[in-house]
Amino acid sequence: MLRGFSAESDRAEHDWETKFRAIPDPANLRQYMQRLSARPHHVGSAYDKDNAEWLLSKFKEFGLDAKIESYDVLFPTPKERVLELVAPSHFTAKLQEPTVPGDPTSSQHDEQLPSYNAYSIDGDVTAPLVYVNYGAPTDYEQLDRLGISVKGAIVIARYGATWRGIKPKVAAEHGAVGCIIYSDPRDDGFYQGSVYPAGPFRPSDGVQRGSVMDMPVYPGDPLTPGIGATKDAKRLKLSEVTTFTKIPTLPISYGDAQPLLAAITGRVAPERWRGALPITYFIGPGPAKVHLKVSFNWDMKTINDVIARIPGSTYPDEWIIRGNHHDAWVNGAEDPISGASALLEEARGLGTLLRQGWKPKRTIIYCLWDGEEEGLLGSTEWAEDHAEELRKKAAVYINSDGNGRGFLGVAGSHTLEKFINSVARDVKDPETNLSVWKRLQLRALADQPESAAGATRESPASDRQELRQRADLRISALGSGSDYTAFLDHLGIASLNLGFGGEDNGGVYHSVYDDFNWYTHFSDTDFSYGRALAETAGLAVLRLADAEILPFDFADFTDTVQRYVDEIQKLAQTQRAEIVERNREIEEGVFAAKDDPQHKTVPPPAEAVPPFLDLAPLQNGLAALQTASARYDKAFEHARESDGSIPARLSLRALNADLIAVERALTLSDGLPGRSWFQNQIYAPGFYTGYGVKTLPGVRESIEQKQWKLAQEQIVRVGGVLENSGERIQSAAAELDRGSQ
Amino acid sequence: MLRGFSAESDRAEHDWETKFRAIPDPANLRQYMQRLSARPHHVGSAYDKDNAEWLLSKFKEFGLDAKIESYDVLFPTPKERVLELVAPSHFTAKLQEPTVPGDPTSSQHDEQLPSYNAYSIDGDVTAPLVYVNYGAPTDYEQLDRLGISVKGAIVIARYGATWRGIKPKVAAEHGAVGCIIYSDPRDDGFYQGSVYPAGPFRPSDGVQRGSVMDMPVYPGDPLTPGIGATKDAKRLKLSEVTTFTKIPTLPISYGDAQPLLAAITGRVAPERWRGALPITYFIGPGPAKVHLKVSFNWDMKTINDVIARIPGSTYPDEWIIRGNHHDAWVNGAEDPISGASALLEEARGLGTLLRQGWKPKRTIIYCLWDGEEEGLLGSTEWAEDHAEELRKKAAVYINSDGNGRGFLGVAGSHTLEKFINSVARDVKDPETNLSVWKRLQLRALADQPESAAGATRESPASDRQELRQRADLRISALGSGSDYTAFLDHLGIASLNLGFGGEDNGGVYHSVYDDFNWYTHFSDTDFSYGRALAETAGLAVLRLADAEILPFDFADFTDTVQRYVDEIQKLAQTQRAEIVERNREIEEGVFAAKDDPQHKTVPPPAEAVPPFLDLAPLQNGLAALQTASARYDKAFEHARESDGSIPARLSLRALNADLIAVERALTLSDGLPGRSWFQNQIYAPGFYTGYGVKTLPGVRESIEQKQWKLAQEQIVRVGGVLENSGERIQSAAAELDRGSQ
Repeated sequence: MLRGFSAESDRAEHDWETKFRAIPDPANLRQYMQRLSARPHHVGSAYDKDNAEWLLSKFKEFGLDAKIESYDVLFPTPKERVLELVAPSHFTAKLQEPTVPGDPTSSQHDEQLPSYNAYSIDGDVTAPLVYVNYGAPTDYEQLDRLGISVKGAIVIARYGATWRGIKPKVAAEHGAVGCIIYSDPRDDGFYQGSVYPAGPFRPSDGVQRGSVMDMPVYPGDPLTPGIGATKDAKRLKLSEVTTFTKIPTLPISYGDAQPLLAAITGRVAPERWRGALPITYFIGPGPAKVHLKVSFNWDMKTINDVIARIPGSTYPDEWIIRGNHHDAWVNGAEDPISGASALLEEARGLGTLLRQGWKPKRTIIYCLWDGEEEGLLGSTEWAEDHAEELRKKAAVYINSDGNGRGFLGVAGSHTLEKFINSVARDVKDPETNLSVWKRLQLRALADQPESAAGATRESPASDRQELRQRADLRISALGSGSDYTAFLDHLGIASLNLGFGGEDNGGVYHSVYDDFNWYTHFSDTDFSYGRALAETAGLAVLRLADAEILPFDFADFTDTVQRYVDEIQKLAQTQRAEIVERNREIEEGVFAAKDDPQHKTVPPPAEAVPPFLDLAPLQNGLAALQTASARYDKAFEHARESDGSIPARLSLRALNADLIAVERALTLSDGLPGRSWFQNQIYAPGFYTGYGVKTLPGVRESIEQKQWKLAQEQIVRVGGVLENSGERIQSAAAELDRGSQ
Repeated sequence: MLRGFSAESDRAEHDWETKFRAIPDPANLRQYMQRLSARPHHVGSAYDKDNAEWLLSKFKEFGLDAKIESYDVLFPTPKERVLELVAPSHFTAKLQEPTVPGDPTSSQHDEQLPSYNAYSIDGDVTAPLVYVNYGAPTDYEQLDRLGISVKGAIVIARYGATWRGIKPKVAAEHGAVGCIIYSDPRDDGFYQGSVYPAGPFRPSDGVQRGSVMDMPVYPGDPLTPGIGATKDAKRLKLSEVTTFTKIPTLPISYGDAQPLLAAITGRVAPERWRGALPITYFIGPGPAKVHLKVSFNWDMKTINDVIARIPGSTYPDEWIIRGNHHDAWVNGAEDPISGASALLEEARGLGTLLRQGWKPKRTIIYCLWDGEEEGLLGSTEWAEDHAEELRKKAAVYINSDGNGRGFLGVAGSHTLEKFINSVARDVKDPETNLSVWKRLQLRALADQPESAAGATRESPASDRQELRQRADLRISALGSGSDYTAFLDHLGIASLNLGFGGEDNGGVYHSVYDDFNWYTHFSDTDFSYGRALAETAGLAVLRLADAEILPFDFADFTDTVQRYVDEIQKLAQTQRAEIVERNREIEEGVFAAKDDPQHKTVPPPAEAVPPFLDLAPLQNGLAALQTASARYDKAFEHARESDGSIPARLSLRALNADLIAVERALTLSDGLPGRSWFQNQIYAPGFYTGYGVKTLPGVRESIEQKQWKLAQEQIVRVGGVLENSGERIQSAAAELDRGSQ
């Protein structure tokens, strides 16, 4: 029986699901994509508006109550972009993505947004060039060891490893005056396979656009942090905004990067820093000197979220929200139309069921967001605008973005781990005769290292045993990078992100070549995985909307939090041991002894040995969660009558309110240290990873950043959060017990 | 006190060593190198002969009794070399290393041996091309998984990972009809740093010559396995030789390789296979089709070993042998003249001491070998020719080859581990104020991974503890690749290989650019490390020749054998567990589930589960060794009178004979399975690694090759060898006990 369903509604649900599964049609997905990606449709463009209106008309055509909700946001577009090598020789970067023969939309130059990084500040700098690998904090530690400073320099970093916005942020922290980001062919160009149009990978002149707003501080419209960017919202002055870069930043192709990199000399880059260009990768600084000039039109634009609503028949004030963005950097076939098309086809399916008499118990809201690319604008402003209502009513948010061929990717709230496993078991993989769940499980087995060296946890053997025996496959935690962020991190709404991929590699991300021609040659060419996404997300929405009891589960959640607490403990121990060992090695002269006098290095500085941290508050919080979760499981097992019905005494409204409150209890209104917008205490994008998640972020990042006093405070706060959330679970269990007595 | 010395001779030794240390002079090393590398001096060339005579004259000038010992060997040189791409386009490889401006010897084209692989068979083949990465056995396993066969194809493999001779050998085993070997710029070209003449790395047209004789079967003259290639030796017919390649083989530059590799399509090579050329690395087969034609002059050449002898004053029938080759592929400044020059300077030092009245107790033999490059010809033929006498008299062989800047590299017999540690403690590193021993120890600490992931043994912490607390740094075991092979592996003579390096990277190995200009710009430019090598090897020779008791130690040896036995045990366990797991995964459908239908793979075949092996014979052998070693240590401690003298009752002649016999007891006259020339049962070059060592090779390789019955037999044999060697140690201990009673 489906989790949270009575026997009777379980039977009905199976019927509706069977009807639903038959609806999504790859031919429709293809048509949607062709229409939506026919022209560039970035924020503020005519075709972006046109798409929004077309999407609205489709929702209405499907019989849904839909409208456009608009916000006014700051969106800079390029006025001037100059990048030139001025010494030791001269070269001017072309900063253009040429038309590709046979690709009809790659020639729409008049409508294409030029390649740039949104929310870079204006700037005009000339300085020596330093190659900084991915520009991650560890890369600067390495530069310190090599005695190389970026102070007063322009850095050139390759895309990858960190989210792009981290690169100018960390470069500026180290005193750089400008930042160039390029796509190395090693990461998504010819090193990986044939380049477009012969193959899916990034051609020499392909550029990755993208936002460099400091989203780990807050995403959304820079002028309206924490509130909806409505017409009359109170706005910051430009000078008050904290999420612009501190230095001018520009993305370039590897065609443009090669002459710059080839002109650098000095120290040879460490092996792991080297890309696939046919040059020796040197670090510099100089003798290459570059002139970088960027300026922008700092204009306000209107963004258009397209929102459809199916009112709940029984619990209209419990909301299941489903979203995908519709705006793109250019034509955006893969990102985001592959996902947006699946969402649209789901909506058609739900519309069809409604006409056949289906009545979802909960309210369902389908959202096609605008302005995701620039900084999650559409979803963030909508979530901030409706924050009060959402905090009360939102049960679950399900997101998707790009979609491709391969394996189901699931990440999200672990209270939904068991639920989404059940959905994945019921969807068939288009390429094999397996369920997408089974295929995932078997791949995970295949990907286990043969020997102990690469094992993720205790040993490959125990990892394999878990994969074979645990009821549910583990899902990843969510960092940031798509529209779930405001729901999960700001409001504490249980969220999932879904999408297929892994067999659809390529290198057209955020370039003019992410278009219909590319997608239909190299990704999910027959849209069978688009159909599978519509089926997967649609089934999830149906089940969440139809269940009597919201199918949250706290055993998997608690199991996961246990792992996080273990990681924190190990992190603290390892870090301490490493500092003690390193200090000893400095004293022993290890670094000096290893040094090559012709290539001197700088020993790391001795560091204060960290105090031992008191982890008891975290462990007590975890224990409370474990107790509560065990009680809930027991109560849940007994919450059905012998005929499979749910006892009439049980107040489902009260129970579901408690369940929704569990997730909300994971937030604190004053947020994380230094970034109050991020209120979730279990999940957050890393302050220095950008997209990559940090779990128990307040504690983990304090330890990583060696702020011991802060770490101890955070341990107490987060321990309290776990206890509070345990209390909400206890309350739900009590309601179950009361109802089933 | 120095190990094996009485108090009195210890004092004398210190004086002689002090005198000796003052002698080696970098200016001489520079002059020797300039003279010896002035012209190409490969086997059979005029300058090779000229060098031998000059070296002879130097030995005589130093006052040593020296002569040239000559052998007649088969040495093929190129008659015809053709390599062309014939489809889908046409390209002819130039197979030429051009003159480099500013490098005076790179223009000596008339005397340079063309780039080729010696002991390739003649052949003329045209076939599709397949890229096979390094051409190691595991690469072919990967090809099997990708469903790609090399049957009837010409393979192109990059240099590295395995010894070059393994590449055509394994290719032929898999049905290839030709083999091209090229130097990928990733491994020693621009990917690593600036190329010659701007930097030390391999330029686009640089080629690595080298022998591809099947040396793991037997090295030395192919026509005279096991016997000296004297004028009247009984020789095999060409058709009877088993050590030629089975398919024609040719080495090329990356300049020549790029058009061939760029013409391959098909499956993209796995990430770890990809080099640094600016192309997508595809595997093929084809559509690239190449024509490879090579033919050779199968001529006999005379090789000239230059041998100097200092007769022992007390134990003339106990020999300390020191060698380095003098022949090169072309000018060979680094390989081998950097080492040969150090040896020559040592000889000058010993000659000086002799004139001052020094009388070594043992006979010292200094050897400058010819024909090393082609297959260790000079050393092997000499060792085979003098085998009977060597088996009786040789105590230790000390080898060197190329030398560079950086850290002392030591590998060899673990009975000498303690001894060579004591020498390394007494030599000062030219770049730091540390002993070379201390610098090695501190580097080893620096190179320990921070976290458990990369630990070699139990944990980085326990590795560090050992590095800090164990009296001796561990030395590596010797595989093959230089002139110690016949001494160690064929005759069972305790051997060491010494050389500095690690700060002298480059890419001119076996090319015309390994010359005086390169060496004096990029390697040990002031010859301070050449001087350090002369000091290190010279001190070792002095101590070995002067000690009353040969300074063999069996505690470190036993400790090392213990590790090998542990490794064997773990290997058997791991292999069994992996086969069981893989069979299970095949049954579960793991491989099929992971497969991308657009890039199909072939699941591995199910394999018979290995039987459990009875390792008791090995463990019993080890136990015997441990008992004997402990007894010897105790006896050795008591083998001195209170005044530091050695008891007169003790027969040093008998004791030293026992000590020499320990090493000989590690051999079996019928050798390793399938290769009887290799008699040492502890150390051998791997049958499929070529240079890389396999310890306890009979057992280890049988297990690796899944020959379980053979493995069990080998366990019994090797256990017996350990017991025999334990008996010899017992006998030495008994002699000590008898003498000190």
